[in-house]
Amino acid sequence: DPDLGWQHARQGRRHEGVSIFSDLIPAELRAVRDFLLGRPELGLQADPDPSLTKNRLFLVELLTPKKGRALQYLESGGRRPRRQARAVVFFGAEAQPNVTEYVVWPLPAPTSYRPWGKPAPFAARPMSQLEFGLLSQRLAESLAPLQQFLLDASGFGFGNCGDRCLTLTEVAPRGLASGERRTWLMLQRFVEGFFLHPVGLEVLLDHRELDPRLWQVQKLWYNGHYFSSAEELAQLHASGAVPVVPLPPHPDESLFSTFVPRGSFSAGPPTDAHGAKVCEPQGRRYWVEGNLVEYSGWSLAFRLRTSTGLQLFDVRFNGERVAYEVSVQEAIAIYGGNTPAAMQTKYIDVGWGMGSVTHELAPGVDCPEGATFLDAHHLYDAPGPVRFPRALCVFELPTGVPLRRHFDSDFRGGSHFYAGLEGAALVLRTTSTVYNYDYLWDFLLYPNGVLETKVHATGYLHTSFYTPEGLRYGNRLQEHLLGNIHTHLVHYKVDLDVAGLENSFETLDVALENISLPWEPSQPLVQPRLEPQPRLRERQAAFPFGKPLPRYLLFGNPAKPNRWGHRRSYRLQLSSHADRVLPRGWQEERGITWSRYPLAVTQHHNNEDTSSSLYIQNDPWSPTVSFENFLKNDESLENQDLVAWVTVGFLHIPHSEDIPNTSTPGNVVGFYLRPFNFFDEDPSVASRRTVIVRPSEPGGRSGVHVQRWTPADPMPCISQEPFSYNGTYWPI
Amino acid sequence: DPDLGWQHARQGRRHEGVSIFSDLIPAELRAVRDFLLGRPELGLQADPDPSLTKNRLFLVELLTPKKGRALQYLESGGRRPRRQARAVVFFGAEAQPNVTEYVVWPLPAPTSYRPWGKPAPFAARPMSQLEFGLLSQRLAESLAPLQQFLLDASGFGFGNCGDRCLTLTEVAPRGLASGERRTWLMLQRFVEGFFLHPVGLEVLLDHRELDPRLWQVQKLWYNGHYFSSAEELAQLHASGAVPVVPLPPHPDESLFSTFVPRGSFSAGPPTDAHGAKVCEPQGRRYWVEGNLVEYSGWSLAFRLRTSTGLQLFDVRFNGERVAYEVSVQEAIAIYGGNTPAAMQTKYIDVGWGMGSVTHELAPGVDCPEGATFLDAHHLYDAPGPVRFPRALCVFELPTGVPLRRHFDSDFRGGSHFYAGLEGAALVLRTTSTVYNYDYLWDFLLYPNGVLETKVHATGYLHTSFYTPEGLRYGNRLQEHLLGNIHTHLVHYKVDLDVAGLENSFETLDVALENISLPWEPSQPLVQPRLEPQPRLRERQAAFPFGKPLPRYLLFGNPAKPNRWGHRRSYRLQLSSHADRVLPRGWQEERGITWSRYPLAVTQHHNNEDTSSSLYIQNDPWSPTVSFENFLKNDESLENQDLVAWVTVGFLHIPHSEDIPNTSTPGNVVGFYLRPFNFFDEDPSVASRRTVIVRPSEPGGRSGVHVQRWTPADPMPCISQEPFSYNGTYWPI
Ligand SMILES: [Ca+2]
Ligand SMILES: [Ca+2]
Ligand SMILES: [Ca+2]
Ligand SMILES: [Ca+2]
Ligand SMILES: [Cu+2]
Ligand SMILES: [Cu+2]
Repeated sequence: DPDLGWQHARQGRRHEGVSIFSDLIPAELRAVRDFLLGRPELGLQADPDPSLTKNRLFLVELLTPKKGRALQYLESGGRRPRRQARAVVFFGAEAQPNVTEYVVWPLPAPTSYRPWGKPAPFAARPMSQLEFGLLSQRLAESLAPLQQFLLDASGFGFGNCGDRCLTLTEVAPRGLASGERRTWLMLQRFVEGFFLHPVGLEVLLDHRELDPRLWQVQKLWYNGHYFSSAEELAQLHASGAVPVVPLPPHPDESLFSTFVPRGSFSAGPPTDAHGAKVCEPQGRRYWVEGNLVEYSGWSLAFRLRTSTGLQLFDVRFNGERVAYEVSVQEAIAIYGGNTPAAMQTKYIDVGWGMGSVTHELAPGVDCPEGATFLDAHHLYDAPGPVRFPRALCVFELPTGVPLRRHFDSDFRGGSHFYAGLEGAALVLRTTSTVYNYDYLWDFLLYPNGVLETKVHATGYLHTSFYTPEGLRYGNRLQEHLLGNIHTHLVHYKVDLDVAGLENSFETLDVALENISLPWEPSQPLVQPRLEPQPRLRERQAAFPFGKPLPRYLLFGNPAKPNRWGHRRSYRLQLSSHADRVLPRGWQEERGITWSRYPLAVTQHHNNEDTSSSLYIQNDPWSPTVSFENFLKNDESLENQDLVAWVTVGFLHIPHSEDIPNTSTPGNVVGFYLRPFNFFDEDPSVASRRTVIVRPSEPGGRSGVHVQRWTPADPMPCISQEPFSYNGTYWPI
Repeated sequence: DPDLGWQHARQGRRHEGVSIFSDLIPAELRAVRDFLLGRPELGLQADPDPSLTKNRLFLVELLTPKKGRALQYLESGGRRPRRQARAVVFFGAEAQPNVTEYVVWPLPAPTSYRPWGKPAPFAARPMSQLEFGLLSQRLAESLAPLQQFLLDASGFGFGNCGDRCLTLTEVAPRGLASGERRTWLMLQRFVEGFFLHPVGLEVLLDHRELDPRLWQVQKLWYNGHYFSSAEELAQLHASGAVPVVPLPPHPDESLFSTFVPRGSFSAGPPTDAHGAKVCEPQGRRYWVEGNLVEYSGWSLAFRLRTSTGLQLFDVRFNGERVAYEVSVQEAIAIYGGNTPAAMQTKYIDVGWGMGSVTHELAPGVDCPEGATFLDAHHLYDAPGPVRFPRALCVFELPTGVPLRRHFDSDFRGGSHFYAGLEGAALVLRTTSTVYNYDYLWDFLLYPNGVLETKVHATGYLHTSFYTPEGLRYGNRLQEHLLGNIHTHLVHYKVDLDVAGLENSFETLDVALENISLPWEPSQPLVQPRLEPQPRLRERQAAFPFGKPLPRYLLFGNPAKPNRWGHRRSYRLQLSSHADRVLPRGWQEERGITWSRYPLAVTQHHNNEDTSSSLYIQNDPWSPTVSFENFLKNDESLENQDLVAWVTVGFLHIPHSEDIPNTSTPGNVVGFYLRPFNFFDEDPSVASRRTVIVRPSEPGGRSGVHVQRWTPADPMPCISQEPFSYNGTYWPI
């Protein structure tokens, strides 16, 4: 049993360092909560009193150690850095309501805490379940005069509505300036895929006050017209002055927004059978132990950070660190439209708990059946830790293409040799279901030292009620449905540490030179040559959208040449269709200044840990974090600890095929980290999954000799044919 | 047995139309050959007399029917178009040696032929095995004076050399102007991966004359210095005036260029076991019958054209044609360097038989073990048809990501529903091993009407002998090896026929508009809106490199709206890092004018069948086909039969990890064809591979109801766990 061999190899290994990056376990989350609840000076409320004027613990997550401390421990076995938590408290009971963050330590038994950073304005806080509940309730109350209107317009209503209830979608930001908290709400039929069932009514509700009784409807929009109050709309409707757009009857028309199969393919075999699957004839050929993953030279620690999402730490290849951190920072979607909600929608997803909505991955659909599934625990807007089962999966994926191959023809009907190395990658995946949308976050490890990052977008569209004016902003997708234009952008932090901490950044491109041909000097020659450009300071390494990005983006250690004298480097390669979403400096753009740059490189600073924050969504105008500030001091990038900040994304113009859901093919962006003179040769030569075929006698046609290092016998899950190879292309 | 069901369904189907696109079978190839050999007026030589002054049949392949004829037959069951061959004859025995092409008909028993197009200059013809043999022989003769020099420099030689023989690599084009045929040859140690073993000697041999005795060495280059003759170099060497760079001893140093595993990964389980594989628990869920493929709504015919490569024809989804043809046209690699061979290298691969070097795909390495492998037959530079076993493979690939999914949270610890459709695509693959390089040509069919085209580059680098001056053009990869900068470009023809023949082309981009906020008119609003731009003529639809390509490239039928009133369209989406390789109009660039444009759209013409030809490589200066001419007449693109011509590629700056071979991760480019308002909704809703999970009772936590249309029982090759789903994220 080959498994036994692995176990033996495994026994001798120690990974104590790893857990410094592992997320807080439920006991730790509870300990932090209980510790803070026990601080009378904080006045935290544990009871379920549904009031906003209380002090409440909102979020607890691991606070990773400062990088210097962590490296000291990982490298030289220094003192283990103390395990700390970050806690976010909503202070609703204070004279100046605010959100304050704390560091709490030491875990697992905390004894101390202190504020962490500056408090955020209370109006900038993320929406909570409590506030959402109050909002829904207040909306229903406010719309009481519209009962008949809603019934006429949608056939649906609030309260005692059976299978014909309305629901609401709230957009953000919530207003036009700092301190505001007034939200456009869209009313939708509550059916499967309600995101696609707007009834045409949108309501602007001011909920800035902490007493919901003071919350007021400020404006309404129905089918292209604005109204000052529910009463006004109700009266006009009663007098017949409001042309109502009756919706098609439920439930017949609701099928379109569901996953329920319908219709049939008119070509190909029936699909009611299992198609191709991933299987593992010799079991799992990777290791997952706690939050440590190992695979074909790679080792890393990961974490599913409640506030932001997946983070990789201490990413090594053959024991040597390549990156200290690779992590998701933020995802945004900036919309255009002709309804107020669509005009207002600039989703900035960390403010919606992007790292916490890591809902269950389904075996056989979201990950292969045989994947390793891992749970996550979050304390986010909840009284205690919540288990998210199967929040992560890890699996080896057969890529379907060889990693490398060559047929070495002898040009006489045979070959000198054929050889190839099958293609596989280890995938580490989680998902964020941010309300309607489902992001699939992938990191892929290839045995040749390449790390790939991908984000796929699927789930439901964010849509609006169709009116003819909407066609300037999107396509009509159903009778009453407009798919609004928007751009998805995703921001990543890539703290490469290439052959050590002290790195420099250089771009490499191609230039055409016009020279005279050495062997016939009268003749001109135009040919490509390298055009390297060292980027010495942060401003030289901040590439705005709108200009072409240089094609080779190289992070290396000038003091560490490889065997052939070249700077050991890693190359960043983007796969993206992103572009700028708003003019520089424009209102909400100030909160997402990272979105100016497909790539910006900075000197590492512990206090520049994230490029966004929980508070940008609801106050992008006076952002608590501005990425642009990281560049302002234009620091040196020579022999420094560098961090690459990468923006990828795509323009999404919804089309009929986004119904029922956005599908993944083509809706994927990301980047590669590729070794570039980092190794002396391709490190995948260490893999024993190579097959080499040579003719039995050189130049002969009589047979081949197959050399391989994996079992030749077929395994249960693979084809019943033993491996064979002919090696000829012989006249017949 | 579900297989039986398919067979029954299959019986009722008829695909007679398909074979009009199927490649010639060996009997047809022989029949064409024998027919032409029997025409005394052609004076064709069948005997193996190794002389260039003979008339010889070089290539025979299917000549596809004219599109109008084919459509008539396919659509209205008209007369079957006559089956014809294209034959290429080298007329070496004529007073004016030339290459003439013929149409030969009818097959399978030809009776007629006539010239097809204009003859090409003889100097423009592709290299043949015969000429290469003569070239090698003549080179060895010419270098006889250098025996001692070669031994001193390389330890290798010509003739009676055992395991220490030299070989040569020829580059192209072969000269500097039309009519020339003088080739720079690089000498290499003939070891495994000899492409990486230049000995530092390059030789310019003029072989324009048809009598090899007249072939002359014109120039030599060794280690940075030029010499006029072998004798000069030999004399200077003998006198000690040539500093010889002794190469490291063979065979120890030759390991680096092989696939032989070495070293080990210091993390992860051992790799001497099978990893993740593709398996098919219920057998193949696609159909391949002859050259017809069907899968999840898709049907198409394919062909492996000897001269150019893979072609798809009559590509339909749910019976409706989406594209008449999608095909590979050309692949080029344009190099820079400091040695004459590198300076001269502008590989234009159709001139190297790109469609004919379709060498065997290895199960388990090049395609999954269970793939369907198909042979191909070529008559290219051979006395008769040659079988290329397993030249193609077809398989279903589990993509590892769902096609669509959504977790519909109830925000109270459960879900309204979870649903997903597993992700799979059918892959149709072939490879072209053009000497050192291996291109993997893929077409992927997704069940949602998306077709993806990919080309991966692997195999060996084309390299040169390292001297310090070389560092302007690449990286040092081994002691004596430079990896030269080059750009790969690939050209595709995409004859979309979207909802009929009469299509228009429109681009769609995003613009930012600055308006006043309707509900607060004093406030400005900047938001995205659609910016459509009809492209009415060919010049408006030829997008040069250097300017950003509009982001939505839409081919549609204005007369055929979908159910929601939008023009039924297909979107072209590029995944590429290509850029221009030479200045417009510069010498060799005149042969590759297609490379000016990531996209150009033309009116379809039967006489604009291909954008390149067999004769460009050896005469790019006066090209037999110039793509630019397709655009010159600036024809209308309104309601016309349109063809999209797509260039993709990437800049390749070789690095140490390209040793031993270029690996596929990151070295892949291509494009998608995506429906855009073509269907009324995503056609993958027809798939029965969806899984829907709902709570047993709405809002409940007590269990879930799983709805699926595929067997719930695990199949032999999948996990032993039955599908399960929990559907909660519940406080613990
Ligand atoms: Ca800075
Ligand atoms: Ca760093
Ligand atoms: Ca034209
Ligand atoms: Ca067309
Ligand atoms: Cu989108
Ligand atoms: Cu290359």
